[in-house]
Amino acid sequence: MPKRNAVLSELGRRTGEPPIAWLMKLALDRPKLISLAAGFTDNPSLPVEATRELLEKILGSPKRGQSALQYGAGAGDADLRGLTVKRIVEQDGANPRSGAYAAERLVVTHGSQQFLYMVSEALFDPGDIVMVEDPTYFVYLGIAQSRGMQCRGVRMEADGIDLANLHRRLEELKKAGDLPRLKALYLVSYHQNPTGTTTSLAKKQEALGLLRRYENAAGHPIYLLEDAAYRELRFAGEDPPSALTLPGAEERVIYSGTYSKPFATGIRVGFGLAPEDLFPAIMRIKGNHDFGTSNLPQQILREALASGVYESHVQALRARYGIKARAMLGALRLHCADVAEWTEPRGGLNVWAKFPRRVATGLKSKLFAGTLERDVLYVPGQLCYADDSSRRKPNCEMRLSFGAASESRIREGIQRLGEAARAI
Amino acid sequence: MPKRNAVLSELGRRTGEPPIAWLMKLALDRPKLISLAAGFTDNPSLPVEATRELLEKILGSPKRGQSALQYGAGAGDADLRGLTVKRIVEQDGANPRSGAYAAERLVVTHGSQQFLYMVSEALFDPGDIVMVEDPTYFVYLGIAQSRGMQCRGVRMEADGIDLANLHRRLEELKKAGDLPRLKALYLVSYHQNPTGTTTSLAKKQEALGLLRRYENAAGHPIYLLEDAAYRELRFAGEDPPSALTLPGAEERVIYSGTYSKPFATGIRVGFGLAPEDLFPAIMRIKGNHDFGTSNLPQQILREALASGVYESHVQALRARYGIKARAMLGALRLHCADVAEWTEPRGGLNVWAKFPRRVATGLKSKLFAGTLERDVLYVPGQLCYADDSSRRKPNCEMRLSFGAASESRIREGIQRLGEAARAI
Repeated sequence: MPKRNAVLSELGRRTGEPPIAWLMKLALDRPKLISLAAGFTDNPSLPVEATRELLEKILGSPKRGQSALQYGAGAGDADLRGLTVKRIVEQDGANPRSGAYAAERLVVTHGSQQFLYMVSEALFDPGDIVMVEDPTYFVYLGIAQSRGMQCRGVRMEADGIDLANLHRRLEELKKAGDLPRLKALYLVSYHQNPTGTTTSLAKKQEALGLLRRYENAAGHPIYLLEDAAYRELRFAGEDPPSALTLPGAEERVIYSGTYSKPFATGIRVGFGLAPEDLFPAIMRIKGNHDFGTSNLPQQILREALASGVYESHVQALRARYGIKARAMLGALRLHCADVAEWTEPRGGLNVWAKFPRRVATGLKSKLFAGTLERDVLYVPGQLCYADDSSRRKPNCEMRLSFGAASESRIREGIQRLGEAARAI
Repeated sequence: MPKRNAVLSELGRRTGEPPIAWLMKLALDRPKLISLAAGFTDNPSLPVEATRELLEKILGSPKRGQSALQYGAGAGDADLRGLTVKRIVEQDGANPRSGAYAAERLVVTHGSQQFLYMVSEALFDPGDIVMVEDPTYFVYLGIAQSRGMQCRGVRMEADGIDLANLHRRLEELKKAGDLPRLKALYLVSYHQNPTGTTTSLAKKQEALGLLRRYENAAGHPIYLLEDAAYRELRFAGEDPPSALTLPGAEERVIYSGTYSKPFATGIRVGFGLAPEDLFPAIMRIKGNHDFGTSNLPQQILREALASGVYESHVQALRARYGIKARAMLGALRLHCADVAEWTEPRGGLNVWAKFPRRVATGLKSKLFAGTLERDVLYVPGQLCYADDSSRRKPNCEMRLSFGAASESRIREGIQRLGEAARAI
């Protein structure tokens, strides 16, 4: 009998089940569950009426409608690419003539996840190294795992990665002769998933400078991959400019963003900017993936951006998430102050809670079981740490999302979480 | 100075510029060009008004609208998966309880191209072998090239691949000890791109049987990858059932299809069915690509299928492409009968023309230059042949698409093509 598994490629055999799939199954099996784990966004604030009106405009004229329902260009709609670059320039308060913001090097993707996937394909062979925040966005860890990449975690502080730790890790790689395998540092720089941390511009600048200092030993560029997925979802304070504003960004910064979370997650439109050395390889890969992102969803975003509908939706959404974040933080103060500490995010969708070291939060922990028994689900912090044998994964943290659940269910969920923690 | 190219992965360095990108650039640079090369579909028949009405239904109720604008499931909308399987069962005249048609093993993708890409990721390591039709769909050759796969071309006859040639090629692989690298036979089985050929069920059955006979020597299953992208676009005659109807299909047939071409290419929704041994690997890869196809486009197709709008659109579209195909065939008879032979397709978007051996059609040929001088573009046949050193690529054929151009421009284009050919 032929062996069944022998037919899969190395990638096919290697690619693991994402832990989130298991969490989603749990949620589907228990309809009463209060999921503080889901990465879903707030349902009531989805722009149903606005999208309907935008589509009326797009499909109201036969000519425009036909063009929206036809294949588009591989890199995406030219106007949408221009509007996207213009928006990043404005957010950065940058000079639009700076080479770092070139619409010719921007590709519209099927969510920013696709861009991260293609960048990883273009850069990393199995065994190659990416540095990531410790903890980081766990779906990116899935890409890295699937592609056989090695991850090195860099410690986090309140304003982004710990630069001394980054330096130490670079030195370790240098001593081990592993720098030629290091291709990029991946930072989720705004309201990070999972911790809510925003990286200061000074840290981005120092990190980029540090990477540069190791390039000669690496024998090639080392990129700063800035994932700005949550940039649009700020509800308090001011955000720092992106790494695209830094000297040398044009050659070393890869920037990824998305319209899915700030507009509608059912309309997957993301984008990425990449330096000239990388962009053609990414575009050739895009040609093989799908030769271009679905055109109608792009036309919705183009019209939303051009008409101002996008901006007013984002403003309303920020206020809404601000309210939901405050509901969660208030409930944490009320029900969990004696058992945990947490971050106070100024944007994004997540609160990061730390329990005392003796309180494990993992999938097999008493707390996870006790919380689930009370019909509440969270993302165990462990899942957000890369496999990196040089340190033990912390096992007393959790990601609590205020994106999907209603305020009353957020409060109820946090109250039950506190009960479960105290019951241990 | 760090070396720039040294930073790319093997895949990143290997992935070539698709030839079609160059053809598209030519078309953009010459607005007057009559493109008989474009894979675009017929603009005037795009369902603008129908899509508008479908979206009214979807976005007309806040509840349904919100659900359409939220993330969906990784494998796709459950109803759409069910409707898709139902449609294939009906097309095949099959028993809906047959294990070959399980909605649980169907994934909705961002065009069928994404499915082909993920299947290739799951199955093929660099150096692994896929057998393809000679000629075949050139975008699939791009995927194979990018992934470092080896292709083996199998000769074509009027009703599909030449089984004796398939047998010979399998024997060659066996003798060379290369069978363990052979993972699949890729067939574009309905109105093939580029030749318009439809593979008979008998041939599919014999091919599947042949592959089975070599599995023990391979040490693993060898799949039949049936790409039914043009199945919906039949305008004459009857189509044979798919390979899913064959004994053992449940374990050995991978089936891919799309709604993009038959409904709207600006709404990229494709799908694929895969055997139980492969499906989980494909789904894990999908999780890393994008954790699910854009939901709103899926809802449009779901509503179109459920309401019958899809069926009536497809009927109209078939009639339309029938008219355009006849326009092209009539023009060929009028203007090219003395210089070429061609296939008479019963569906799809392409006519395949053969010139005498001395008339080269390649990108550097006099005919290509002469045609372009007359503002007409075709796809040189050579681009549709896999790199396979065991045979020379024919260089006297071309793919002529009647999808995008209007009837009058099709006639004009073919007339100029005839002039260019006679001028040589």
